[in-house]
Amino acid sequence: MLELKNKIAEEGKICAGNIVKVDSFLNHQIDVKFLERIGKEFYELYKNTNVNKIVTIETSGVPIAMEVAKCFDCRVVFAKKGKTKNLSDNFYETEVMSYTHGEVYKICLAKEFLGENDNVLLIDDFLANGAALNGLLEIVEKAKANLVGCGVVIEKGFQPGGKNIRKKGIRLESLVIIDKIDEEKQEITFRGE
Amino acid sequence: MLELKNKIAEEGKICAGNIVKVDSFLNHQIDVKFLERIGKEFYELYKNTNVNKIVTIETSGVPIAMEVAKCFDCRVVFAKKGKTKNLSDNFYETEVMSYTHGEVYKICLAKEFLGENDNVLLIDDFLANGAALNGLLEIVEKAKANLVGCGVVIEKGFQPGGKNIRKKGIRLESLVIIDKIDEEKQEITFRGE
Repeated sequence: MLELKNKIAEEGKICAGNIVKVDSFLNHQIDVKFLERIGKEFYELYKNTNVNKIVTIETSGVPIAMEVAKCFDCRVVFAKKGKTKNLSDNFYETEVMSYTHGEVYKICLAKEFLGENDNVLLIDDFLANGAALNGLLEIVEKAKANLVGCGVVIEKGFQPGGKNIRKKGIRLESLVIIDKIDEEKQEITFRGE
Repeated sequence: MLELKNKIAEEGKICAGNIVKVDSFLNHQIDVKFLERIGKEFYELYKNTNVNKIVTIETSGVPIAMEVAKCFDCRVVFAKKGKTKNLSDNFYETEVMSYTHGEVYKICLAKEFLGENDNVLLIDDFLANGAALNGLLEIVEKAKANLVGCGVVIEKGFQPGGKNIRKKGIRLESLVIIDKIDEEKQEITFRGE
């Protein structure tokens, strides 16, 4: 998605540790008109499928998932993080290892909002090692829902998350794949360039 | 907002401790078409002002804020919770007392996304004791931004948050105000009924 590449080039900030910060438009401040176009892009990729539920994880997945859901005219449900209290049989839950924060956290999703009649598109902002997305995949499996595929805004192609998910035969669409981040030169190389 | 009252009556669940759960459409599963109408309702209330930035707090404020921002054609910025690591001079921060979870947490917002040129509408899903909203008000003040007003989807009129904010002379619009929750009868009384 050319507009996304340009946006990352213009507004993204390269930080130490192969980090690209896009918090001016994607995950702290949100450019809502731009996210509308992101939503339509995922819709174009998946419009010939039977998607009827968008699943994501709080917080930064939520605004993107909303725009996708609007195109499909369906509801979003987002997994909640670190809610260890008050959990009951009413929730699917699993554990996720966060490489960014070096800790394990729980994610959960209420059983009443995901089940075998749901054809699920998983949406998230970033895919690096794939920890969050794998957590969501586990929850979809526990719910016996039908997984249609995954959609990620920015995939870091030099980390193994995307490759591992595709290896399982799961459809994964990333709007851009970053192959290299050069902190010194402040340069990002996108796949296909 | 009649549609919202009906939605709460139909889909809301009354739980012990004066809790109304609306997680089938507002803060776990999200009814995106309904949120569009919520966004327009806030726009109607504030359209004659100079709002150019929507500020909210993660997670459940974000989808609502997005719909409001779309009407005003401006960006959203959301305060992040509990991010104590990696904080620097680049963030406004304050502490919030959560009555629901019985704990104090930090909220923060990057300085680059809020400043004296911003005319702010604060948006949140619930207003009870006003802890979160007061935290956001503090951040707006620290940023020397201009506060236009606040918009809340569901105010609990029997808790002091709303009253205290209005007493300060701040404009606060709640789409519905709940005056009473009767767990035994499973009945909600809205203000004006």
